[in-house]
Amino acid sequence: MTNPVLVEVLRGGLVESAHRGALAVFDADRQSVWEVGDTTRPVFPRSAVKAIQALPLVESGAADAYGFGDRELALACASHNGEAAHTELARSMLVRAGLSETALECGAHWPSYQAATVALARTGAAPTGLHNNCSGKHAGFICVCCHAGVDHRGYIGAGHKLQEMVREAMEDVTGAAHGPGNRGTDGCSIPTYAVPLKNLAIGFAKMATGQGLSTGRAKAAKRLFAACMAEPFYVAGTGRADTALMQAAPGRIFVKVGAEGVYCAAVPELGLGIALKCDDGAGRAAEVAISEVLASLFIKDEALAARLTELANPVLTNWNGMTVGSSRPTAVLSWIGR
Amino acid sequence: MTNPVLVEVLRGGLVESAHRGALAVFDADRQSVWEVGDTTRPVFPRSAVKAIQALPLVESGAADAYGFGDRELALACASHNGEAAHTELARSMLVRAGLSETALECGAHWPSYQAATVALARTGAAPTGLHNNCSGKHAGFICVCCHAGVDHRGYIGAGHKLQEMVREAMEDVTGAAHGPGNRGTDGCSIPTYAVPLKNLAIGFAKMATGQGLSTGRAKAAKRLFAACMAEPFYVAGTGRADTALMQAAPGRIFVKVGAEGVYCAAVPELGLGIALKCDDGAGRAAEVAISEVLASLFIKDEALAARLTELANPVLTNWNGMTVGSSRPTAVLSWIGR
Repeated sequence: MTNPVLVEVLRGGLVESAHRGALAVFDADRQSVWEVGDTTRPVFPRSAVKAIQALPLVESGAADAYGFGDRELALACASHNGEAAHTELARSMLVRAGLSETALECGAHWPSYQAATVALARTGAAPTGLHNNCSGKHAGFICVCCHAGVDHRGYIGAGHKLQEMVREAMEDVTGAAHGPGNRGTDGCSIPTYAVPLKNLAIGFAKMATGQGLSTGRAKAAKRLFAACMAEPFYVAGTGRADTALMQAAPGRIFVKVGAEGVYCAAVPELGLGIALKCDDGAGRAAEVAISEVLASLFIKDEALAARLTELANPVLTNWNGMTVGSSRPTAVLSWIGR
Repeated sequence: MTNPVLVEVLRGGLVESAHRGALAVFDADRQSVWEVGDTTRPVFPRSAVKAIQALPLVESGAADAYGFGDRELALACASHNGEAAHTELARSMLVRAGLSETALECGAHWPSYQAATVALARTGAAPTGLHNNCSGKHAGFICVCCHAGVDHRGYIGAGHKLQEMVREAMEDVTGAAHGPGNRGTDGCSIPTYAVPLKNLAIGFAKMATGQGLSTGRAKAAKRLFAACMAEPFYVAGTGRADTALMQAAPGRIFVKVGAEGVYCAAVPELGLGIALKCDDGAGRAAEVAISEVLASLFIKDEALAARLTELANPVLTNWNGMTVGSSRPTAVLSWIGR
């Protein structure tokens, strides 16, 4: 099936580009609440499932052993900008385990946030693994190994004990099998497994409610979500949609972007999990789409819905600051009339 | 109509993302040679038509008056990386007209090429209009004004004499009307007009062959194309598809990218013009698509076709240099069996 257009990008009043995709909203009882497009095709969730991948960090006792609070847990679930606050915190997580950034196996890249790249370049330094947007997740992985007395080296490999723990959590939460047949390698070198959107939505409903999870896992999931919602800057950073969305409704919205146009999210008070993917992998469209979906779900809260609608309709300005266009969600993402 | 998938992006053997779009290949007699998808829907060509927009620079005599050679003309047609060679040449174009970068009205942005951003940041300087990827085009615009004795200030406005000259050239070459109804504002603040892909393809066939153009315009078009093909580094820069494609077949391929997934191109020896647009605006897909189209058109030149096919099938590596995926054109872009 051909997925519908979810988001349009306008210039001068004309539609310049358009983004297709699919959306799944489910509850923890596996009941479909809202589906758009094909929600059964496996998609790589990429970084959108970092909160699930961080479950072993809490469940193993490593987070407590190393004294991690909300910020560290948020960073373990983050795709951060590589701003100084992010890299310093990632470094401190490794230091608490007696290690340094040389233990990171995620690879180095210049910060995702241009201002952070410029700031780093001006110091004359080059980026390390700490600047990788996944460094908090990797620091968490390494801490799990250290706390469990497992050699952390090679922790990015599909056959490493750490990845087995992550895979077990992913399969339990999503209910989807994870194996060589649906495996790819992520940008940060860990395995990523393609899973249907509906399974991801159900998984995030389970994470938010604890339903269908063991008591320990349910507690760990709630702690991770609470940490991200309490410290949204550490999940993304300056100017980022994830940070803005979680700041718009403290404690009421969990969102996490994934590369290639993915979002996973949850609304704990409604008991709902959300997963969406833009077919073309466009992050700009995924941000508009998740904002509009959340605006629809919070339609009865006028002030919050208005803020979310604002985030769902960004204005495009050019290098002179002139307004030259905008992005907008299409009617298939509107709850009105449903 | 729904345009077909032109390009697929794979990870771990699975299709992770896909890009739809349309393609038009025409000759200068307005004969359709190859069409995929809807070629009649108006699309903003953005920077893909810079060679047409540069016609007044040559036709007015400004290029000769200021002693511009191939490099300056290539830069006037460029979306450059903001590397030092680009910014210095743009500056020198303005100096020859007795001006400096303060005359540029394109706005400033950090170089498109990350290594150039890092190099600039390390000097402690901030970007100016010279680093804008359009600075060569703007320098050319300003030179036209200076040579013609027209006040250059406000040259980005749709009502300015310079934009009237550009619009006349665009309408003549594409055969499409340019007015307020199909006008948008480009990233660099000049007007951009939505035109059907088929008109763009015909226009580039006319530029390549001179057919259907006045003698003076035909000569100017050939000179601009020859300049870009002779100096492809100045049309784009390090690591860029435009540069690589024109280097692959010196003097035989003209290509120019436009923002939001557009390419315009020409193959002079075949008398063909090409225009394509990815619906979602993805530049990565447009690069794969134009490379595959050119590989198809040069199918009889085995060595060249092999190089173009290589460019049409880029491998995706991650931050550790591991191969994690690839992009590939779909069968609709293959000439085989046509």
